[in-house]
Amino acid sequence: KVIWTVLVTILGSASSLPVGDDSICTAEELAKYRIIFTGKWSQTAFPKQYPLYRPPAQWSSLLGVTHSSDYSMWKKNEYASNGVRDFAEKGEAWGLMKEIEEAGEKIQSVHGIFSAPAIASGTGQTSTELEVHPRHPLVSFVVRIVPSPDWFVGIDSLNLCERDHWMDEVSVDLYPYDAGTDSGFTFSSPNFATIPQETVKEITCSSPSHPANSFYYPKLKILPPIAQVTIVKLKKSQLGLSAPFINLPAKSNEIIDSVS
Amino acid sequence: KVIWTVLVTILGSASSLPVGDDSICTAEELAKYRIIFTGKWSQTAFPKQYPLYRPPAQWSSLLGVTHSSDYSMWKKNEYASNGVRDFAEKGEAWGLMKEIEEAGEKIQSVHGIFSAPAIASGTGQTSTELEVHPRHPLVSFVVRIVPSPDWFVGIDSLNLCERDHWMDEVSVDLYPYDAGTDSGFTFSSPNFATIPQETVKEITCSSPSHPANSFYYPKLKILPPIAQVTIVKLKKSQLGLSAPFINLPAKSNEIIDSVS
Repeated sequence: KVIWTVLVTILGSASSLPVGDDSICTAEELAKYRIIFTGKWSQTAFPKQYPLYRPPAQWSSLLGVTHSSDYSMWKKNEYASNGVRDFAEKGEAWGLMKEIEEAGEKIQSVHGIFSAPAIASGTGQTSTELEVHPRHPLVSFVVRIVPSPDWFVGIDSLNLCERDHWMDEVSVDLYPYDAGTDSGFTFSSPNFATIPQETVKEITCSSPSHPANSFYYPKLKILPPIAQVTIVKLKKSQLGLSAPFINLPAKSNEIIDSVS
Repeated sequence: KVIWTVLVTILGSASSLPVGDDSICTAEELAKYRIIFTGKWSQTAFPKQYPLYRPPAQWSSLLGVTHSSDYSMWKKNEYASNGVRDFAEKGEAWGLMKEIEEAGEKIQSVHGIFSAPAIASGTGQTSTELEVHPRHPLVSFVVRIVPSPDWFVGIDSLNLCERDHWMDEVSVDLYPYDAGTDSGFTFSSPNFATIPQETVKEITCSSPSHPANSFYYPKLKILPPIAQVTIVKLKKSQLGLSAPFINLPAKSNEIIDSVS
C-alpha cells in the first residue's frame, strides 16, 4: 500500500505524462456525479454587441462524454472534428453523438454520453447526471454560444479520479473558444467558412486582435468567465431521483442575481 | 400464478381504470431503453409559413421523465404547469426540472429525468437513454416546436410495462399541441399571453379554425405526423455505451430522405 502510494505520487508529478492521463486511477466502482452548468453571459459583464433579439443571448444543449485518455472530444490548438464543427456552428448534436459512439465501439474509450437541456437566456442554469468508471474517469463537454459563428465553452478531459478515490466536487470557470471553422467576428456574423480550417483557439479580450471582435475589450486584462461548471459527487443515498438537484435555487438565475 | 393472471386480465380490461394506470406492473427489476426522437417537420409536408430564417424550423432539447400515475408532466385538456409553459414558450427547462424534482421528493412519483440534445433543423434525430421501474413504468416528455408561440410535441404517461414484462419496442406518431398560454396563431407570432390561460389542446388541420393558423390546411383530413418517437428496450449486453444507437444512420436526416 505504501509502495503504491509513492509510485503513484511519482507518476502523478512526472511532467512527461500527457495532460488528463488516467492510467493511475485505482478508485473502485463507478461513481455518479451531478453536473451543473451556469451561464454568466449577462449584458452587464459583456456589454459589447450583446444579442437581444432573434435570437437573444442563450446556450445550446450541453453534450458531454465520460471517457479514457484514448478519446478526445475537442482540444485547444487542435483541429475540431466534423461533429464538433456542426455542434459549434449550428448546435446540431447528432454527428458528434455518432463520433462518440464510434469511439466507444472501436476502441472502448468511452463510458457514456450525457446531455442537459438548453438555457433560453445568457444567464441561467442546466443540469444532468453523469457516471464515471476507473478506466473512464475523464469528463469532456461542449455548449454552443448562441448566437455565434462557431463559438463554444466546454471542458476537455477533466479527471474526476484522484489516484485511489473520486473527487467530491470540482468547479471550473469557463471562457469562450473558437472552433476554427467559421470566420465570423461577431455574435451575429453570417456564415463564412474558414478555409483551410484553423485549430480550436481560446477567444480572449485581446485575441483575435481586431476591434470588430465581439469579445475584444482592450481595457480588460482578462475576460470575466462567461460560464461556470460544477461537478458534485452524488452520495449513494442520492442515487435515483431522491436529491438530484442538491438544493439549487428555484429560479435558474437566482445565483446570478445575488452575485451581480 | 393462474389466479393472478386472470385477475390481471380482468383489471387490465376494466374500462373504469384511469388511462396510464400502472398499479398492475409485475415486471421485475429496472429496464433501460433508448429513446429516439425524429423530427418530420419538413417544408414539403408543412409548406404553410414554414420558418426558414431567424430562426429556421428546429426542435428544442427533449426533456422527459419516468414516473408513476401519481405524477403528470402535461395532459391534453388540462392546464399546463408553469414549468411546461416556460418550456413550451421559451425552451427554458429549469422550472420544469424543478417541478419534476419536487414531485420526486414529495410523493415519490418520479424515477428519473432524461434529456436529449436539440435538433438544429425541422427534420433530424436526437436520442438518449432512460430507465423505468415497476413502480415508475410511465414515460412522458416534451419537445418545443421552434419557432412557435407555445407549441410542442410530446408523450403523456406512456406505459412501458405490459403486466409482467417490459415492452420491447414502441413507436408513436406525434402531432402538435398548444400549451394554452400564448395566443399567437403563427410560428413567428410575437408573444401575446393568453389570459385567462387555456388548457392544452391538440392543434389539427382544422383547429384552431382560422386561416391564419400555421397548421390550418382545410383540404387535409388530418395533419401528417410532425415527429415520431421510438422507444427500444436495451438488452443487458447493450447497457453501458457498447451499442446505444442501435444502428441508426450516420446522418440524422437519412431516414427522412429515404421516405420522402
